[in-house]
Amino acid sequence: MKIVRTIDALKKDVHQMKSSHAAIGFVPTMGFLHEGHLTLAHRAKKENDQVIMSIFVNPLQFGPNEDFERYPRNEERDAQLAEEAGVDVLFLPSVEEMYPSEPAVTLTVQKRTNALCGLSRTGHFDGVATVVMKLFHLTEADRAYFGKKDAQQLAVIHGLVESLNVPIAIQGVDTVRESDGLAKSSRNVYLLPDEREKAPALYQSLQQTKQLIEGGETRTSFLKEQAADFLTAKSGAKLEYVDILTYPELEPIEFVSGSVILAAAVKYKNARLIDNIILT
Amino acid sequence: MKIVRTIDALKKDVHQMKSSHAAIGFVPTMGFLHEGHLTLAHRAKKENDQVIMSIFVNPLQFGPNEDFERYPRNEERDAQLAEEAGVDVLFLPSVEEMYPSEPAVTLTVQKRTNALCGLSRTGHFDGVATVVMKLFHLTEADRAYFGKKDAQQLAVIHGLVESLNVPIAIQGVDTVRESDGLAKSSRNVYLLPDEREKAPALYQSLQQTKQLIEGGETRTSFLKEQAADFLTAKSGAKLEYVDILTYPELEPIEFVSGSVILAAAVKYKNARLIDNIILT
Repeated sequence: MKIVRTIDALKKDVHQMKSSHAAIGFVPTMGFLHEGHLTLAHRAKKENDQVIMSIFVNPLQFGPNEDFERYPRNEERDAQLAEEAGVDVLFLPSVEEMYPSEPAVTLTVQKRTNALCGLSRTGHFDGVATVVMKLFHLTEADRAYFGKKDAQQLAVIHGLVESLNVPIAIQGVDTVRESDGLAKSSRNVYLLPDEREKAPALYQSLQQTKQLIEGGETRTSFLKEQAADFLTAKSGAKLEYVDILTYPELEPIEFVSGSVILAAAVKYKNARLIDNIILT
Repeated sequence: MKIVRTIDALKKDVHQMKSSHAAIGFVPTMGFLHEGHLTLAHRAKKENDQVIMSIFVNPLQFGPNEDFERYPRNEERDAQLAEEAGVDVLFLPSVEEMYPSEPAVTLTVQKRTNALCGLSRTGHFDGVATVVMKLFHLTEADRAYFGKKDAQQLAVIHGLVESLNVPIAIQGVDTVRESDGLAKSSRNVYLLPDEREKAPALYQSLQQTKQLIEGGETRTSFLKEQAADFLTAKSGAKLEYVDILTYPELEPIEFVSGSVILAAAVKYKNARLIDNIILT
């Protein structure tokens, strides 16, 4: 596996891949890799000739009171895991390399942000869209891999690709979970021991909601109330939201029908966790 | 020359060009072609294996009180001229084809718009950047050709390509002029006979300013005053702006130095005209 830190070096590798007609799979990450990321890399390896993974903690997508500075980083361990997962080129740019000056042009997400994390994380998805657009251009990838855990992000990326006619296929990959159901996340390391014990309640609440829907309940207000009560009682965290929306449009609905997302976010002392189930 | 009206048809042609390693030159236009556009096409033909020209009057870049509805159109004549100029594929999409629904993601120009046309045409360059980004993705071109007459647009496109790492080379092409100096523009057809007679004053004012600078004058306030007086006396139009700025940053300066643009805009009864000279 090759590690490149500059845009020029990455472009040279991409140019070589393109010259030899290699299909390029791209896995954008913020590092501190866990099984979720590695699943993306494995899938990319299976479907492409070459896999590029990026590790870049993108300041543009963090709010002023968010955890940009203390977002967990472990470059050496990440490089080893990436290599084991079959990554061919690991792109590790600095902030200065990605943003040598304030960008003259950025992306603005017009839809799918007025819900879930978009409500509390102002500008977050604009920052995500901007860096993802840059990385798509730099890697010239045929396919890019995103986890379904960040379902709103995935919806935004689908919107980006459709709206701007980006010549890339977006592959959504199922959430990888701990044995007790907790979704794998780089931020899980910030859970205190008793928080970690209660954190599976997040996924449990979504599963219970799913079961109620499968049992015939369709009233979203009732379903959300049930899930909120459960989370308040069992998660040991501050409930940030629980919602049921159309997917991928993320529009509110009174009754469950069609493709919907059940999503929740809770806030522990040092970690904000999100999870979701998409029903079709 | 092939005429394609759908994104699917264009993508098929682009795919074929890419498969045969053809270098693709792209000329985006709003149609009603004149020698300026044809010069772009000729240059594209010289530097690439295949030339794609688009004709699309982009509603996103027109303000509510601007001339979107009455922007001049003449598809048949355009197709003939494009073919003669060596265009291989002419892309003529409908508004519905380009914007099947409100775009979920758009581009926002953060720099280089707080001057010249950007001041009066709110949102104009966001609309330009968004459609150009779409067209770059659809054509997967190696090079794209823009006229220097729209110098602010060219500066914005350079900013777009740098900020978002777009893998395309931007070629700025010199303004083509009538024998009396008036810059070729699709909007010239809207000039009344007496306006057409006086319109060369626009370029004359810029040339005089250039001569004053070459003669040693550097005070931009004095130079702008001179040009404004000339335009008010000679153009028979309402002066919209005359300015001297750094190029391509478009920052105001007190004294001429480095790369600068001399630019002016005037408004006739049915046509707003712009022109510029870039000095390095």
